[in-house]
Amino acid sequence: MRTQAAIGVFDSGVGGLTVVRSLTERLPKEEIVYLGDTARVPYGSKSAETVARYSRNAARFLVGEGVKMIVIACNTASAFALDVLRAELALPVLGTIEPGARAAVAATRSGRIGVIGTLGTVRSGSYVRAIAAVDAHAHVTAHACPLFVPLAEEGWLDDDVAAAVARRYLRALALDAPELDVLVLGCTHYPLLRPLLTRVAQEVFGHEVTLVDSAQAMAEVARGELARLGLLRDDSDGQGALRCYVTDDARIDEVGHRFLGRHLGEIIRVDL
Amino acid sequence: MRTQAAIGVFDSGVGGLTVVRSLTERLPKEEIVYLGDTARVPYGSKSAETVARYSRNAARFLVGEGVKMIVIACNTASAFALDVLRAELALPVLGTIEPGARAAVAATRSGRIGVIGTLGTVRSGSYVRAIAAVDAHAHVTAHACPLFVPLAEEGWLDDDVAAAVARRYLRALALDAPELDVLVLGCTHYPLLRPLLTRVAQEVFGHEVTLVDSAQAMAEVARGELARLGLLRDDSDGQGALRCYVTDDARIDEVGHRFLGRHLGEIIRVDL
Repeated sequence: MRTQAAIGVFDSGVGGLTVVRSLTERLPKEEIVYLGDTARVPYGSKSAETVARYSRNAARFLVGEGVKMIVIACNTASAFALDVLRAELALPVLGTIEPGARAAVAATRSGRIGVIGTLGTVRSGSYVRAIAAVDAHAHVTAHACPLFVPLAEEGWLDDDVAAAVARRYLRALALDAPELDVLVLGCTHYPLLRPLLTRVAQEVFGHEVTLVDSAQAMAEVARGELARLGLLRDDSDGQGALRCYVTDDARIDEVGHRFLGRHLGEIIRVDL
Repeated sequence: MRTQAAIGVFDSGVGGLTVVRSLTERLPKEEIVYLGDTARVPYGSKSAETVARYSRNAARFLVGEGVKMIVIACNTASAFALDVLRAELALPVLGTIEPGARAAVAATRSGRIGVIGTLGTVRSGSYVRAIAAVDAHAHVTAHACPLFVPLAEEGWLDDDVAAAVARRYLRALALDAPELDVLVLGCTHYPLLRPLLTRVAQEVFGHEVTLVDSAQAMAEVARGELARLGLLRDDSDGQGALRCYVTDDARIDEVGHRFLGRHLGEIIRVDL
């Protein structure tokens, strides 16, 4: 019975659809209920208290939808609300930060890891703590890159403007940590900039830099956790559906497909 | 009695402090109560219904503070909520769009006017309608420039990245309307980019383009309206104070002074 329940995913907006994409690749049979809090997007520039409050609203909505697991797609919400939600809810709750931290430690050779994300995520220090918990000797340098989100939403993914912005941010990072060889994409929007960031990182650092996508790392952890709990959906030929809820319907239809990699189908407007 | 009451100003976030700055220049004796809805910022990418709902919350808070007039600093909120608030409230409510439209018509010689703003403001068609109401023969071309807000908040006001973004947006505008000679800054953040936009507009259009700041135009209208209603504060040597409320206290202290042109003083956190 519970195995047939959906995975609930919430995010501040459309960006979390990159997490849905990763989950669908790893867990194609699972049904997914997605909630994008587009009426209050973004979370990345807001305070811990406000983000925790919004996350609690979102998680409760998903619990009401009968999900078997909650995935916090938003890195800022993972930073500020994971512990709160785990303490309050009776079902498994996953965030993006610990999986991203583990993947980063596994990938580094120099032991120097860079993290890029929103202001909120970077200020929370969550990646720094999560990486230190996995490898106390790793050096972590985190920088906020607020322009990457609007660039991704404009669809300016690999052009002169996007390159100028990426150079500005990565040069600042290189000044602080010239030897880093792993860069964690600590925001749901950043995977769209991956080809550009790969190239600019190589140019700026002068050596290969491995990009770690926290969404992919988290999808792997979600699969392991569902298997461990006996909650993997096992229809031999099922194909999981995606049900999308938003708190405001302004833009998700236009930009969502870029994040999801396909069209979204029906989108339902709800108030939290 | 009422003349001593404050002017209430609300905005989606910190941007409206440019409007406070213009009001303070024109009406130095007036007390101002400012509410920045920083927990739900930005409004610019959200739907008419959501923006109207948030604006109603904000206006009611200001009414509760005993203000004598409400100024909607946010262009998106002016576009979506001015009529609603005027219908519901018993005190004068001013928006930025009609004053900006009047100033633009007064400034143009070619009769070709450009408007830049958020997605919400541009899609609302409000500037186009407001300008047509003043001069039915004016041609208006409006373009959304979503990256200008994060540029202003980063403080990247006049550098290579800001110039590349400005060129991209203004070239698109010039393709549609090569003869425009007035450009309305239809978003509270844009006055910070004014020196850059003046230069890039000249470069892209090849002739002088007059920049119209809706905030300045609106402050002038506010003064006229208060005088007409006998509500101008008349202490011979009073200097109006500014009281600042925000719905989330994440960043306003850091970036606010750039918008206001001075430090903010005490900031009080409220829930709407």
